[in-house]
Amino acid sequence: MINVTKVVIVGAGAVGSTVAYSLVVKGIAAEVVLVDRNMQKARGEALDMQHSMDFQNRNVRIYAGDYSDCHDADIVVITAAAPLNGETDRLAMQEKSEAIVASVIPQVMESGFDGIFLVVSNPVDVMAYLVYRLSGLPKERVIGTGTVLETARLKHAIGEIMNMDPRSVDAYVMGEHGDTMMVPWSHVRAGGKSFAEILNDSPQRFPGISLEQIVEQTRLAGREVLTAKGNTQYGIASAVTGIVKAVLHDENKMLPVSVFLDGEYGERDVYCGVPAILNRSGVKEIGEFHLREEEKEQLGRSADTLRQAIRRIKTLR
Amino acid sequence: MINVTKVVIVGAGAVGSTVAYSLVVKGIAAEVVLVDRNMQKARGEALDMQHSMDFQNRNVRIYAGDYSDCHDADIVVITAAAPLNGETDRLAMQEKSEAIVASVIPQVMESGFDGIFLVVSNPVDVMAYLVYRLSGLPKERVIGTGTVLETARLKHAIGEIMNMDPRSVDAYVMGEHGDTMMVPWSHVRAGGKSFAEILNDSPQRFPGISLEQIVEQTRLAGREVLTAKGNTQYGIASAVTGIVKAVLHDENKMLPVSVFLDGEYGERDVYCGVPAILNRSGVKEIGEFHLREEEKEQLGRSADTLRQAIRRIKTLR
Amino acid sequence: MINVTKVVIVGAGAVGSTVAYSLVVKGIAAEVVLVDRNMQKARGEALDMQHSMDFQNRNVRIYAGDYSDCHDADIVVITAAAPLNGETDRLAMQEKSEAIVASVIPQVMESGFDGIFLVVSNPVDVMAYLVYRLSGLPKERVIGTGTVLETARLKHAIGEIMNMDPRSVDAYVMGEHGDTMMVPWSHVRAGGKSFAEILNDSPQRFPGISLEQIVEQTRLAGREVLTAKGNTQYGIASAVTGIVKAVLHDENKMLPVSVFLDGEYGERDVYCGVPAILNRSGVKEIGEFHLREEEKEQLGRSADTLRQAIRRIKTLR
Amino acid sequence: MINVTKVVIVGAGAVGSTVAYSLVVKGIAAEVVLVDRNMQKARGEALDMQHSMDFQNRNVRIYAGDYSDCHDADIVVITAAAPLNGETDRLAMQEKSEAIVASVIPQVMESGFDGIFLVVSNPVDVMAYLVYRLSGLPKERVIGTGTVLETARLKHAIGEIMNMDPRSVDAYVMGEHGDTMMVPWSHVRAGGKSFAEILNDSPQRFPGISLEQIVEQTRLAGREVLTAKGNTQYGIASAVTGIVKAVLHDENKMLPVSVFLDGEYGERDVYCGVPAILNRSGVKEIGEFHLREEEKEQLGRSADTLRQAIRRIKTLR
Repeated sequence: MINVTKVVIVGAGAVGSTVAYSLVVKGIAAEVVLVDRNMQKARGEALDMQHSMDFQNRNVRIYAGDYSDCHDADIVVITAAAPLNGETDRLAMQEKSEAIVASVIPQVMESGFDGIFLVVSNPVDVMAYLVYRLSGLPKERVIGTGTVLETARLKHAIGEIMNMDPRSVDAYVMGEHGDTMMVPWSHVRAGGKSFAEILNDSPQRFPGISLEQIVEQTRLAGREVLTAKGNTQYGIASAVTGIVKAVLHDENKMLPVSVFLDGEYGERDVYCGVPAILNRSGVKEIGEFHLREEEKEQLGRSADTLRQAIRRIKTLR
Repeated sequence: MINVTKVVIVGAGAVGSTVAYSLVVKGIAAEVVLVDRNMQKARGEALDMQHSMDFQNRNVRIYAGDYSDCHDADIVVITAAAPLNGETDRLAMQEKSEAIVASVIPQVMESGFDGIFLVVSNPVDVMAYLVYRLSGLPKERVIGTGTVLETARLKHAIGEIMNMDPRSVDAYVMGEHGDTMMVPWSHVRAGGKSFAEILNDSPQRFPGISLEQIVEQTRLAGREVLTAKGNTQYGIASAVTGIVKAVLHDENKMLPVSVFLDGEYGERDVYCGVPAILNRSGVKEIGEFHLREEEKEQLGRSADTLRQAIRRIKTLR
Repeated sequence: MINVTKVVIVGAGAVGSTVAYSLVVKGIAAEVVLVDRNMQKARGEALDMQHSMDFQNRNVRIYAGDYSDCHDADIVVITAAAPLNGETDRLAMQEKSEAIVASVIPQVMESGFDGIFLVVSNPVDVMAYLVYRLSGLPKERVIGTGTVLETARLKHAIGEIMNMDPRSVDAYVMGEHGDTMMVPWSHVRAGGKSFAEILNDSPQRFPGISLEQIVEQTRLAGREVLTAKGNTQYGIASAVTGIVKAVLHDENKMLPVSVFLDGEYGERDVYCGVPAILNRSGVKEIGEFHLREEEKEQLGRSADTLRQAIRRIKTLR
Repeated sequence: MINVTKVVIVGAGAVGSTVAYSLVVKGIAAEVVLVDRNMQKARGEALDMQHSMDFQNRNVRIYAGDYSDCHDADIVVITAAAPLNGETDRLAMQEKSEAIVASVIPQVMESGFDGIFLVVSNPVDVMAYLVYRLSGLPKERVIGTGTVLETARLKHAIGEIMNMDPRSVDAYVMGEHGDTMMVPWSHVRAGGKSFAEILNDSPQRFPGISLEQIVEQTRLAGREVLTAKGNTQYGIASAVTGIVKAVLHDENKMLPVSVFLDGEYGERDVYCGVPAILNRSGVKEIGEFHLREEEKEQLGRSADTLRQAIRRIKTLR
């Protein structure tokens, strides 16, 4: 019997469910399993998606399950986290999320899981570190969503400014998925040209637009969505789907995920968002960027913030 | 300049937003506009989806707008409706939905809209009738989602029983989108065979399964999802996406939508779910099925129920 | 490391190459390997497709290889066959194709291949039988393309007549992929209605159209393409892609492939096109249709023809 | 009635047919029309593709037509050209192609065509110029495939070297679609980093690889395919499909197509491959790159070569 791909999603809230639906609509995996403490909720979401199958391109098996379903999963996506409750500082949610993640991971591992973890729960860099330590899996196989979403937001913002397809923008956000994120502008290009140069060349064409303001807009984009609709789901779910696709389809695609740094960029023992090549083995390679001096410092400060947060993890003391 | 396709969705709740996201992920239209009384909500949903664009196959323009955006829309999808509030009888919600729809349609028409209405608001058959009368558009251009979702649910249920791809099931639910819906079993086939015969031939293979029980399960599937997760969105959004695709892509595809009956099946002056061929002109043709005597009666009773509900529309008195 | 899907295509002619390209464009598998006696040709085709990757949705690894690549393949597609050379009777090509297939299969098996064979080489039912016997694999894992292509042609023809999406037509062609193919009209439906009844009900709407003429058109459609352009490739390649997708994606989809009959329809020891459910195990089930008496006879005659052709296989004597 | 998209392809050879098939499989347009002097051939190709429709995601109307079908086409793709006949210098084919194109364009324009020309016929930059002059359409609406294919080849080559998804490579080839093409290495990045720097940083990781050798490989890639299989079709057809999608879907995507230069890069009155943003109006904008001095010179030499070839067009004397 041919091997089929299986993704288990822990947490059937708005993010988990939208990830499941995106995987179903895009037909990325053969089986998608929703696991939630509230089994009724997971079952409802799965049933609702089963009713969509007549209109999908691929007959995906979507159902509610439990941790034993992780046994032969290729990827387990961890979305369970503390509720936002108006909490806007991601690190502040850390304690609550830690409790949840610390209870989830042993249950996943007990199933005999031997695949790849994709951590979405916030604060994502800290939770990815926690999953890495608790699971005992090699670092290549524990990935956080990192700054993939910020990157998509930055590309969209630049696309709007330039009236250009965001997919024609080549940009990365790095560092913490949170306030200390940074943009290595020396690596941001729109349609093949340095975006900083574009702004510089034609200031009259882009009145009132500055790199600083775009960074600020990117940093606050999540909060903006949160204020307007009460949660965020579509952007992050698409980012997760993109990461799952790169891994399951063995694409060797570069995405700025949160990975364990072991000397790269001069950082150690921390999870942090940096561009990495993803394939069936998880993180295949961290392609270290040439950063300018001030960019290096910004990234360093972001990593410091994360290391401090990581030290606050009680489970690992 | 080449014409591009534009879909306006009125109502940015769970259904409207999931429709928008499905259109974006599947890349069905070039522009998708969300219109909601709560503009903030519409803006938040659109922004959230804009952040997903880096991972989509098509660069879709998704944004929050107002009724003036209907001016050059190809399709306007009406999802605004009374909240469910534990209300499970679709007709009971009629009065509240009527007020909403009756206020929406004139605003759409004032924009100069001259496209196709797709009505999702419940009770959908009654609301489709109301939109038809209020808009003054030809009947071919006012379509309700009808029994498309029940049909997807029926196919899924049979697929589960047969352990078969639901898309290999050829089935239709007809009549009211509601309690009086009916299944023309003489037209239901699984993998090319009459499903009634399949059950008949191998009762021991399908213990405890009967046509009646499957009808009941299909009728109650929506309620089951509602109870489990508090709303329904993925099934209906996919049905809407399928209808929009058939129309925008001029596919001549047959789907059991709610259409104005003008003698077909012996019914007049009522909107009711029956299989119809959809293309760029909206309802191209109602392919009248040969129904058995008892099936005709069931369909007639369902149409009667709908006609009575239609008579309760105050706006049209 | 996550398992990825791999398809090897033996024969890089127009059919094999178009199959490879279809798999690449649709993103069905992670790896696609072209094997051909003319390695230069296989390399050229693969290179040409590699140059298309920048525009594909999935980064598929497409390359020229050799039989050792079958080692860990999920599916091996056999397209190598005798050239048509104006030969229009499929059975007449049998001897030449037999020599080719008989030399190919042992080389595939020596690689340690333990997946599923999909036979496309004509005469396909006879060649599928040969592959089954030579490979020693269970019958579930040797599939011929059967009457899938004729079925697509029939659906298209009826779609044209009805001005309807061919995918809204529910039809099957059964029997030999060749002159003795038959259409079980009692199972052919257009938009949910019996097509025979449709023609019967409104003869004036379809002047000059008869079931016999449609069968003839379907039977001759391949020849028509052959005469017009010198070969056939797109129809058959899409049929192959559909079968590969049903298997690799574990869809439980019903398709009229050529399978080993072991009592089904009263036939034994023959490969013949009948609707079957396909999933990751290959042929999951042959859902036996209720055929009318004359349909049974037609199918029987077709199976007889094939059995006679099978007896002519020298390799198995 | 809703507007549907229509693409006419002139020339039903390997390139034209593969373009048609790619549009069908990807579901980019509602109607695809093949026009060829050999109507039988066009009809055969269309029929073959019609037989594939049962397995496609979108019911596309594909058929053989004539020039009158251009009347309401959104895009007319010109693939008709002189046969290669072992001719490897693209300019050498110019005279023969000129005769063909000069006879085709007036027939297209007589239909009342008012859309966008996409020229594929080689030598493509010269033929695009000819179409521009003969059609009288604004320069924004006559586009040549330019160096899109070379760019895909370059991305693939770098992807191979880096073991990275070619879609994670940000690169452009500019200038003539032919021997004088050039790579602006200052704008080529792999996974966000300057590729020239990558090679420089780790020469031991990439033994024997140099920028010059990659340029040479890219320049000769077409010839390599040609030698191996006798023609090229998949790469170029995918490039064409990508351009058609960017235009029909109004994506504002940047692609290095052949456009009329009117002062950009210091060049005038010539068609030449440079990155341009494409949307429903055709060429929306030519985003001028900052080139290094030697890159400017290379591009200038390429443009000179093209201008000389353009002067050889007899039809315009």
